[in-house]
Amino acid sequence: MSSAAGRDLAEAPEERHFLSTEEAAALERELLEDYRFGRQQLVELCGHASAVAVTKVFPLPTLSRKQRTVLVVCGPEQNGAVGLVCARHLRVFEYEPTIFYPTRSLDPLHQDLTTQCEKMDIPFLSYLPTEVQLVNDAYGLVVDAVLGPGVEPCEVGGPCTRALATLKLLSIPLVSLDIPSGWDAETGGGDGEDGLQPDVLVSLAAPKLCAGRFSGRHHFVAGRFVPDDVRRKFALRLPGYMGTDCVAAL
Amino acid sequence: MSSAAGRDLAEAPEERHFLSTEEAAALERELLEDYRFGRQQLVELCGHASAVAVTKVFPLPTLSRKQRTVLVVCGPEQNGAVGLVCARHLRVFEYEPTIFYPTRSLDPLHQDLTTQCEKMDIPFLSYLPTEVQLVNDAYGLVVDAVLGPGVEPCEVGGPCTRALATLKLLSIPLVSLDIPSGWDAETGGGDGEDGLQPDVLVSLAAPKLCAGRFSGRHHFVAGRFVPDDVRRKFALRLPGYMGTDCVAAL
Repeated sequence: MSSAAGRDLAEAPEERHFLSTEEAAALERELLEDYRFGRQQLVELCGHASAVAVTKVFPLPTLSRKQRTVLVVCGPEQNGAVGLVCARHLRVFEYEPTIFYPTRSLDPLHQDLTTQCEKMDIPFLSYLPTEVQLVNDAYGLVVDAVLGPGVEPCEVGGPCTRALATLKLLSIPLVSLDIPSGWDAETGGGDGEDGLQPDVLVSLAAPKLCAGRFSGRHHFVAGRFVPDDVRRKFALRLPGYMGTDCVAAL
Repeated sequence: MSSAAGRDLAEAPEERHFLSTEEAAALERELLEDYRFGRQQLVELCGHASAVAVTKVFPLPTLSRKQRTVLVVCGPEQNGAVGLVCARHLRVFEYEPTIFYPTRSLDPLHQDLTTQCEKMDIPFLSYLPTEVQLVNDAYGLVVDAVLGPGVEPCEVGGPCTRALATLKLLSIPLVSLDIPSGWDAETGGGDGEDGLQPDVLVSLAAPKLCAGRFSGRHHFVAGRFVPDDVRRKFALRLPGYMGTDCVAAL
């Protein structure tokens, strides 16, 4: 890592550096422990930026009423918390989110974010139809906030695993937060050839290694909050953010 | 309050309702207690929106290098915490903030926000020159995050009171967060005719009554996060937010 310190931030795309699992964990530690960012603060920033990324690819004025309906599928870990925040901001941006959050975390942060969504009258599904066509017909797009880096589907099991099986079969656009759920954060494998193949990937803080295997249409990074020194330390040579944008297209 | 419930959000400007101190406190309680928003979360949203408001009035590409320097003066209460977040986002937006934060809070939230700014190499002034021309010459504009509603200058005293005396005499543009420091949140009085006269006012969550006496050029509200039901309950008939904007001009 030290050899990367001080290198220029502006680089050709082929020199981009995506983070190993170890580097991503070290970056998060640096933000939380050295910079004293709070989890509530980071989850809010990432969820807001994820919602903004959705608006870039699917601008509200171009959508029919039906296309404005967004199914946000949230897992029990941090990725799911970001999904809850994303759903709330989508509601604020006048989309019509519905949340499926089958395995609820006991973490007070998750509980508070859930209350915010519930009080804002965002519907929560009590189950996800296994009939794929029902989901395709009911929603304009799906946000996958099920599993983040380092969370194995088998650890979660039950309804989340079943939800992923459904998401794999959908024909409506799919937006994955941080990594496509079920992918290994480094190799992109683990879920076989038939894993999720999102149309949009929103890397949180910085892209993880597996993003190199993402073949969808739009890849954003939502990491404007990452201080310059940390970007340099982790050799994050990323495109610049424009104006006050919180996401940048790669 | 109950008589206001259910009234239409879209209204003519003359029907706008600004909040009494009691209403503002009730709105904040509703967000914190009923909606379970966290203070870290609200302060982050307000500080980010305040920085965005600054970029609207003073767009970076229109500014000389010197004009990009922003002095952010932070008090020890919540208004100061929002100022610290505003300074961090201004840094992210490539302005050059400097912070004067003479009376530091022991609140862990304030301490963490301070660490974030310090680690991002935002300079902290150890004292504010009493010679006004030195401040006029050194900075392009000043953000007043000294005193929020209900905080009396005499409660704070010392360096904050002296800082306000200096801010009153500046000729560079002044941006006040929530209320101009020293103003009574309802009457606008309390600080006499020679109180702060900001060029820009950024109302946080919703405008307070005293905003009716604001005579500067630009008034923004940074309250997109306030849920529709709460806006209706408090009869906040405000202009709509555009796209993904977190502030709206009144």
